[in-house]
Order: sequence, then structure tokens, then C-alpha cells
Amino acid sequence: MDQNLTEISQLGEFGLIDRLTQGLENRHASTALAVGDDAAILHFSGDDDVLVTTDMLLENVHFDLTYVPLKHLGYKAAAVNFSDIYAMMGTPRQITVSLGISRRFAVEHIDALYSGIRLACEVYGVDIVGGDTCASNQGLVISITCIGTAPKGTAVRRSGARDTDLVCVSGDLGAAYMGLQLLEREKVAGKGVENFTPDFGGKEYIIERQLKPEARRDIVEILRSKGIRPTAMMDISDGLSSELMHICHDSKVGCRIYEDRIPIDYQTAVMAEELNMNLVTAALNGGEDYELLFTVPLADHDKVKDIEGIKVIGYITDADKGCAMITRDGSEFPLKAQGWNPLA
Amino acid sequence: MDQNLTEISQLGEFGLIDRLTQGLENRHASTALAVGDDAAILHFSGDDDVLVTTDMLLENVHFDLTYVPLKHLGYKAAAVNFSDIYAMMGTPRQITVSLGISRRFAVEHIDALYSGIRLACEVYGVDIVGGDTCASNQGLVISITCIGTAPKGTAVRRSGARDTDLVCVSGDLGAAYMGLQLLEREKVAGKGVENFTPDFGGKEYIIERQLKPEARRDIVEILRSKGIRPTAMMDISDGLSSELMHICHDSKVGCRIYEDRIPIDYQTAVMAEELNMNLVTAALNGGEDYELLFTVPLADHDKVKDIEGIKVIGYITDADKGCAMITRDGSEFPLKAQGWNPLA
Repeated sequence: MDQNLTEISQLGEFGLIDRLTQGLENRHASTALAVGDDAAILHFSGDDDVLVTTDMLLENVHFDLTYVPLKHLGYKAAAVNFSDIYAMMGTPRQITVSLGISRRFAVEHIDALYSGIRLACEVYGVDIVGGDTCASNQGLVISITCIGTAPKGTAVRRSGARDTDLVCVSGDLGAAYMGLQLLEREKVAGKGVENFTPDFGGKEYIIERQLKPEARRDIVEILRSKGIRPTAMMDISDGLSSELMHICHDSKVGCRIYEDRIPIDYQTAVMAEELNMNLVTAALNGGEDYELLFTVPLADHDKVKDIEGIKVIGYITDADKGCAMITRDGSEFPLKAQGWNPLA
Repeated sequence: MDQNLTEISQLGEFGLIDRLTQGLENRHASTALAVGDDAAILHFSGDDDVLVTTDMLLENVHFDLTYVPLKHLGYKAAAVNFSDIYAMMGTPRQITVSLGISRRFAVEHIDALYSGIRLACEVYGVDIVGGDTCASNQGLVISITCIGTAPKGTAVRRSGARDTDLVCVSGDLGAAYMGLQLLEREKVAGKGVENFTPDFGGKEYIIERQLKPEARRDIVEILRSKGIRPTAMMDISDGLSSELMHICHDSKVGCRIYEDRIPIDYQTAVMAEELNMNLVTAALNGGEDYELLFTVPLADHDKVKDIEGIKVIGYITDADKGCAMITRDGSEFPLKAQGWNPLA
């Protein structure tokens, strides 16, 4: 190990935890007791529902440290959990962070990872209230659980979409996936090349979408401020196609979406062209967009159609009609859940 | 892979989750929405504090599948989280379960693991409300987060021990550690031996303490029923010595415990003798006992002294006196946190 780095065994588990959690301030009145006991204590009012979500990230399955900076990884690991809470129209409040750390990581590496987690918590106003830290002989393991709240009975589930509802998405799709393809290409190109500088010129947006996704708090706030309550909502982590089929399955409905309505950034399109990949497939199945997919009653059309960052891409049908995309030439193409399979 | 087993890729992630969570019933009125959405929804009354704890277990760091049956592993992984909630005088209500699964595991293996988790949830009345399932190229990874409740303001922290309080422990100590030593011995003995049968005769108790620990709900219930509110409490996962020093550090006090008061089962003593290991060291530093360590005001002495399964082992002093054990010959032996170091 580099002599400028500190071996984790020099600090021990409690020393490491002390270092990582030093100066943490509790932002929420609901955080009564955070790190340092058998459990954290949270006070919520009886008017709130408590939301819980969890996510596990494993090295070389979910991330490749060849091109993912540890700080970005920490930020992303936290943000994707916040995204799940926003996808219920909730507000993230607290997280617990468990880390499995193998010997090749020094204290400074874990500092960098944790600084990303802390930054995300700062940006989204979330408290770190606990966790677990242990040795791993298997690379880096990150498991984050997020607690959120929503006023009682207002959390939006996947199961509420109804016939004639409008299907909406925030932001644009496929960029994170094309960013990943670019990172993988440059990784291969850089193999064994000394002082290799990857070529990301003009591709900053898709790289950022892959490495530092944001949770769409802004969209949830706009919906709230306009009095729009989605009938169903999910965040897009496995790809639009797969998530839309989840909503339709759970709501017992079908859907039609329009190919020409799917929002795609020009950098995504250019990259797909360059790599000779199908752009629509990337947008439908790419995954890791962390945009919000939701349905609203048809009566809300006038309210949603002019909101910047939200696009109406189709509508809900009865279940018999199945799930399909209407292509540019007017034909129907059945949707498939070809989303990224984390068990493949 | 054995032909009678089912490859996980045949089911896919959602198929596996469906299978694992099939027939799960929600026991708590507070579980409004469990598995299958972006987040679980929990309703708690405003009169409750919410407790959160989390634990990560990694193959070949925390468990060795050579001798740990998967069902027991699942049970233990859940029970140790419940133990943390009881150690706050709380009641565990819900858990999320995240699994990283490598290719050598078949569906039936994960069924066995999950059946242990479900059994523990049944025994302790806890709901499974979510989780994450992903591929691992690093062996089995288990991360469980437990949510509990306690009437507002009643959760017992580590920081409340005061000078003259009595130090109490439940059950007996060192057995889980000696069970581990025995399992390791038989593993070595069985290496390369066909049809090897490990010799656990007369050692069933220490094996059970290692493989299937229970959380001390019964002790918490007795304390509640007798109106005893500990001033500080922790569960013993890293060893009595280390945990007691945590309480003293956080409470800014010292302590004296008596060697001859430390509760030890005779099987633990026999095993230590057989392996030529120091019995008191095993009881002080062994770890994984999952017994409760707590302090009560001196005035409660009459209430605690006759409770079966609770032993008064010493008392709290002011901080200047430090933490020490009084040995059988009357000398003072300073306590050290030689607990199991998960980062070593």
C-alpha cells in the first residue's frame, strides 16, 4: 500500500467509524439519536407514514473502480436510495450505511467514499443515523437503507394507474446507459497504455448521468406545488420498459407509449450513433436513469403538459390491450422487460 | 451444479423475490405496504419512537458455510438484528433483507437461507417489508436492517449508567465462542476424511449458542413486567469486556465486576479445559453471546437479584476509577477491549 495512505487496521473498527461520522450534524428534529448505540432513535409525528427502502452495491457487479471515483460512488449509492423515497412522493430523512471493506482499501479511500455519501446527505437534507463496518475478502460492499416520511396515506404506490391515465416521465432516458458504454470503451482503450487520457469531449452529460445521478426531488416538489397527485409512480432504475410493465402489472392495466415522445438527450443520440447501437433500445432498456415514471388522471393534462422537465409519453389502457410502444411509422411494438438483470 | 437444484438465472430477480416472499403475511398493523414497491410504508402512532439498526454478514468473514447450515444462518442474521432492538428496550417490527448471491448458490440454497429468516420473523413477530437481491462474484452477502418501536422517550441508551448502579447480564457468556472453537476443530479434523462425522456429543449447548442464538426478548419482557428501567443497556456481540467499556465510555463512568460472578455454562468450561484455553478470557472477550448487558439503580437490587436468567456481576463507579475486574484472589485486573475485531 502507498506509504501516504493509512491502513484501516491502524484505526480499528471504532476508530474508523468515529473518523467517518465526525462532525455529523442531525438536520431533522425526527433524528433523536443517530450513530453510536445499538439502534438509532427516530421521532415521527403520528401524522406521517414511514417509508423504508434499501439497496446493495457490490464491486465489479454494480460498479467498476477502474473508472468510478469513490466519492462519486458514495454520492450515487445514497442518491439512488433517495430516488426510491421520492418515487413514493415521500421525503428522505435518514440513512444507515453498511460497508464491507477489503484490505486493498486504505482509510483515505473510505474517507473519499464517505465524503460522497455525506455530500449527497447534505444536498438532500438527510441524516446518517447508523450502519455497520466490517472486513471483506471480496472487494467493496455497500448497503444503504433509507427511511423517509410522507403525510399519512399520501405515498404513491405502483398499483394505482387507471385506464385513460396519462403516462409521464421526467428528464431524459438512456443517457446513463450510453455513459456506461463510453466508460467501458475507454477502459478497454486504456488497458496497458501509460498515462492514458480517456476521451470524454462533448460527452460530459452522459458521463455525469452514469457517475453522479441525482434523485428527482425537484419534480416531486413541482407536482406537490401544482396539486398533482400521481395515481402510480416508480423511479426508473432498470429501464423504462421494465418499470412501465411493473406499474401495468401491479395496477392491472395496459399501456401505449409513443416512440417519438420518449425524451432523449442529443449526447445520448450521438453516442448511440458512434457505437452503432439502437437508440430507442437504450432509452427503453438502458436503466440507471433514476428519472420518475408516473401516471396522472387525464383531467390533469393541462396541469402537466407545460411543466418543464416532464413529458407525457402515452396513456394507460385496460389490461386486455397489453403494453406496447407505437413506433414512428404507426405500428405497435410489444414492450418487453429486457431491463438489466442483476442476477444474470 | 447438482441436477436436482434450480439455477437462480432460471427465475430471474423478480421470480426469485416472488418465490422468497410468497405467502408472507403482515403481522403488524403498522405494516401498511410491504415487499414490492420502491419503498415499504409503515404507520406508527405518534406515541412511538422508531428504532433502526443494521447488520452486514459476509461469507468467510462472519460465517463459514462448511459448518453453518443456511437455515441457521438466516435465523441468526435476523435474530442478531432483533437483539439490537431489544437492547434499546424496544420491540422489533419490520426488517428489510438484502442478499448478494454468487453463482454457486441454487434457488434451493436461497430458499433454505430465507426459511431461517422467515422462521425468526415468525418467532419474534416481525414483518419482512423489502430488500434487494443481486448477483455477487464474492460469495454470499447478507445485509439486514431492522425497524422497531419503543414508547416515546423510553428507549434505553448506552449513556445513562450512573455511579453506584448495578451491572447485570442475562444468560451465560463465552458459550458461542467455545462453540465456534469446537466447530473449527472438527472442520480441521474432517478435512479430506470421507464420511466424517463431527463429534459434538455433550457439547450441543455451545454449538447451538454459536449457530442459533436467540435475542433476549424474554428478559426485556421480565424487566418491563417488574417495572425495571435499565439506566443503560447493550447487547453483547463483541464480548462483555468491550461492551462494558462502551457503556462506561458513553456514560462517563467506571466499573468493577467480579470474576466469580460472571455466568458461565459448564459445557463452556469443559470445552475451554479440553482446548486448554482460558475460560475467563473466553467469557470476557469471546463475543456473539447476544446476551443483554445493563445497569440498574442500586435501589432496584431487590427487584433484580432473584430474577432467573439475570445476574448482578458488579457495579458502576465514577470515571476516575476506570474499568476493572476483581479476580478470585481479590486483585484488580484492568478490562481491555480485546473483542473480536471485524477489521483485523
